[in-house]
Amino acid sequence: MKNVVVSTRIRLARNLSDYPFPIRMNEKVKSELADKVCDAAKTIMPFDRIDMSNITKTQAVSLVEQHLISPEFISNSEGRVLLLSKDKTISIMINEEDHIRLQVIMPSLCLEEAYKVADELDTKLSEKLKFAYSDKLGFLTQCPTNLGTGMRASVMLHLPALKKSRAVDRIGSNLTKLGLTIRGLYGESSESIGAMYQLSNQVSLGISEQSAIENLKNITTQLVTQELKARDRILSDISVVDTICRSLGILKTARRIDHAEAMNLLSNVRLGVANKLFDSLSLDSIDELMCDIQPACILQRFSAELSPSERDMKRADYLREKLN
Amino acid sequence: MKNVVVSTRIRLARNLSDYPFPIRMNEKVKSELADKVCDAAKTIMPFDRIDMSNITKTQAVSLVEQHLISPEFISNSEGRVLLLSKDKTISIMINEEDHIRLQVIMPSLCLEEAYKVADELDTKLSEKLKFAYSDKLGFLTQCPTNLGTGMRASVMLHLPALKKSRAVDRIGSNLTKLGLTIRGLYGESSESIGAMYQLSNQVSLGISEQSAIENLKNITTQLVTQELKARDRILSDISVVDTICRSLGILKTARRIDHAEAMNLLSNVRLGVANKLFDSLSLDSIDELMCDIQPACILQRFSAELSPSERDMKRADYLREKLN
Repeated sequence: MKNVVVSTRIRLARNLSDYPFPIRMNEKVKSELADKVCDAAKTIMPFDRIDMSNITKTQAVSLVEQHLISPEFISNSEGRVLLLSKDKTISIMINEEDHIRLQVIMPSLCLEEAYKVADELDTKLSEKLKFAYSDKLGFLTQCPTNLGTGMRASVMLHLPALKKSRAVDRIGSNLTKLGLTIRGLYGESSESIGAMYQLSNQVSLGISEQSAIENLKNITTQLVTQELKARDRILSDISVVDTICRSLGILKTARRIDHAEAMNLLSNVRLGVANKLFDSLSLDSIDELMCDIQPACILQRFSAELSPSERDMKRADYLREKLN
Repeated sequence: MKNVVVSTRIRLARNLSDYPFPIRMNEKVKSELADKVCDAAKTIMPFDRIDMSNITKTQAVSLVEQHLISPEFISNSEGRVLLLSKDKTISIMINEEDHIRLQVIMPSLCLEEAYKVADELDTKLSEKLKFAYSDKLGFLTQCPTNLGTGMRASVMLHLPALKKSRAVDRIGSNLTKLGLTIRGLYGESSESIGAMYQLSNQVSLGISEQSAIENLKNITTQLVTQELKARDRILSDISVVDTICRSLGILKTARRIDHAEAMNLLSNVRLGVANKLFDSLSLDSIDELMCDIQPACILQRFSAELSPSERDMKRADYLREKLN
């Protein structure tokens, strides 16, 4: 399962009933609300508080790259605060589109487990904060597409074989009918670099969290089966094995490499690791590298002052060090 | 010097005065002449005798690939015999275009040394065989371009930097005026794969062996200087270093690789070895690989029955084994 499902995410959207939506609040009120949510959260478990207006652009983008916050969250930092659990499994964005965006992210496929963590935290928060809720519409959110459970459940899938056979596009259009959507993690659909895709539920109104999760889990399992079958098929082709092996050779030796090329080579290597072509590498180590080599993560690790070419050289240095 | 000059070759064309040129002889007479030359040669030093009509096409082509015989020599095997010294430094083709084509091949730049070996053997042979010689035209040969000394001296040069800067073409046209010619070892001029070039004298009439060799040596030295300067220039470019390093990575990991790609990657690696980018590899080991991975040499080493695709896989296996 881990061969295909990289990670699981649950996100809950919540709003406080005594405040207007963030778009209608001024900075002062946003800060007041942020403090209120922080105080409540910290009585439940320890969190690091990060005021988005206090961090650099590079730090902010690297948080997006790590999927700890949304790209939308850094479009405007005013009054926005991030709470991050020590192990980075739980993050709470305050004053994004909604007052609270609570997210739980875990490796591999573990929708129920991640939902349980999110649900428990949500329950405890609701004891301290008054959430806007309607018996008819469920949790109230700024955007009507989030009404109801306010939940988005998603899995990050590595689909190199389905991408290669161009099956992802076909699958994508069928999923819409099932209330799900699949998109490339970087860029759109089949243009996704690194063959990474995010599959998530689109319907939150008129469906329970459990049903939405079960639906997502079923489709995920089907996609995993399809992907594994497609892998068996393509791996009988020596040219595919050749490409996978060379990809590791290039990553181990390159002196300069851009993000897209590194991601695509790591995607090939991940397929090789999953299919026992490389003994000394683990899926976890590849997933970690895929995260670490992102542009802002490289700047954050080495120096924010690097030019794009220097960054590509540092990325190559880092990959060589980690893979050799 | 060895960084650029891979090997040196001296070839002497000789004919016996009592026989017509090979083109005018029938098989019986060719055999008689071959026996006569073999007997004479074997009293001087030990040689392996290879009757070209007794070996397979693969064996014959692999001898061409090793530069032990000319491509012309295998176009027709009738009455053709090869004498090969134990260390393969000396080869004598009997009944090629001329009765005798005596060749000495040595690593690096050593024109005088190679000529000395060829000259001594030639002198000893001339004591046993009556060579066709005219005071006016020197040694008589079938093709008038070989009249005079009957000598071709050549050096095999690795010119990756001059090739990259497209300077080889310009140099080529100037060399003609100096009585020399440069050509790609495989294919023509700048299309040479592996950036390997052969520089040789074109004039054998009205010039002594010593003058021809000195002329070739001077031009070789100049070309080496130009190549080394060009290398310093291109190696300051990280993208060139990146390409060199990746080339080794690919050679160490590929599962299938054709001859042209392998040669071009080995050429990059050879440049890297010469410029101390790789500690564990020697120029000799790369030169040996460049020879061993040629199509017929691979068939000869593994099995003559391999399909082209299987051959490319065996080539990759061989490279991985030798480089890891």
